[in-house]
Amino acid sequence: MRLYDYFRSSAAFRVRIALALKGLEADRTYVHLRRGEQRGAAYLQVNSFGLVPSLELDDGSVLTQSLAIIEYLDEEYPEPAFLPGGPLDRARVRSLALSLAADTHPITNLRVLEELRSVYGADDEGVAAWYRHWVLQTFPALDAALEADPGTGVFCHGDTPTLADICLVPQVFGAARFDLDLEAFPTLKRITAACMDLSAFDNARPERQPEA
Amino acid sequence: MRLYDYFRSSAAFRVRIALALKGLEADRTYVHLRRGEQRGAAYLQVNSFGLVPSLELDDGSVLTQSLAIIEYLDEEYPEPAFLPGGPLDRARVRSLALSLAADTHPITNLRVLEELRSVYGADDEGVAAWYRHWVLQTFPALDAALEADPGTGVFCHGDTPTLADICLVPQVFGAARFDLDLEAFPTLKRITAACMDLSAFDNARPERQPEA
Repeated sequence: MRLYDYFRSSAAFRVRIALALKGLEADRTYVHLRRGEQRGAAYLQVNSFGLVPSLELDDGSVLTQSLAIIEYLDEEYPEPAFLPGGPLDRARVRSLALSLAADTHPITNLRVLEELRSVYGADDEGVAAWYRHWVLQTFPALDAALEADPGTGVFCHGDTPTLADICLVPQVFGAARFDLDLEAFPTLKRITAACMDLSAFDNARPERQPEA
Repeated sequence: MRLYDYFRSSAAFRVRIALALKGLEADRTYVHLRRGEQRGAAYLQVNSFGLVPSLELDDGSVLTQSLAIIEYLDEEYPEPAFLPGGPLDRARVRSLALSLAADTHPITNLRVLEELRSVYGADDEGVAAWYRHWVLQTFPALDAALEADPGTGVFCHGDTPTLADICLVPQVFGAARFDLDLEAFPTLKRITAACMDLSAFDNARPERQPEA
């Protein structure tokens, strides 16, 4: 397998965690987002949407979209499971994951921040304020929901990491880059710390990637 | 079941289609997004994230996030299936769906457009340009990918509607509201027309909702 990766991409970070939790090794090609390599001809041959990550399988198939890749890995390599057994619990985990992966991250990723700069003249502070605004549309409700729900354990759901944790940690790392204080979100902070105790999460962090 | 719904919400539109395809009936509560009812105390008791849709089950459980709800419906009511059988095909369908539900829709939904108005003074034309910009980051690649892939049939994957079609149609309806011409995207146009021939899609369209 080959992962098309970028150290600071939250979506790629998710897939790095997922691969490591499954004990899978992938070769890596770094696609430098700040240099626009995702829009270059070579990468568009891999992923015509020009987005990172992509996962190329040994038969040449290319999977795109981090959550689709992670669900694929979970179906092909069932242990350890990223989703619990019952449909209601699975819906809970997917919903927690999507509150980040659909309703937070896409509004705050690099291409959106660049568009704010180029169309609306946003400066560094404007971009940071936009980032924090959208994270703060999600984190208070997410923290409270996790705190209140008996389904929450050491991790977002129970005592093993799930798809929800795989989405949480990269969003927390992104928020830290924009100086968002996690002290107000004790449950998110606690779960993130539990994740970072696992080498699969720790080794996937942006600073540990070779091109960082 | 009770669906907390809003006629113009793309995410709620997806769940209306999914319920209808499964032959399920749900009572409906309309949450008027333009009046801010999603941030009112009554609705926050249902969904503390203040987002539409939510699906309340007969046992009182509340499911949130449209894709999590739709995967739940597919697991609990397997026929007709929203995902194909093999992991690679399932990854393809989920990826197509997420190219819209994660990488397009969240950047262009009402709360983001309102934020652009309030923070950056965007006017109607600015908001429409923003909307079209993000749709045009996805539709060309999506149209070409669907045209090129032998997995595409009458619908996005094969000859029965999947999660991908359920995400496509609401995005096409949204784009039409912002005067985006679908002529440049013949495969999206063809698949959308095939969907709209089905009553499950047609009855779910915004104009057919009681509060429209």
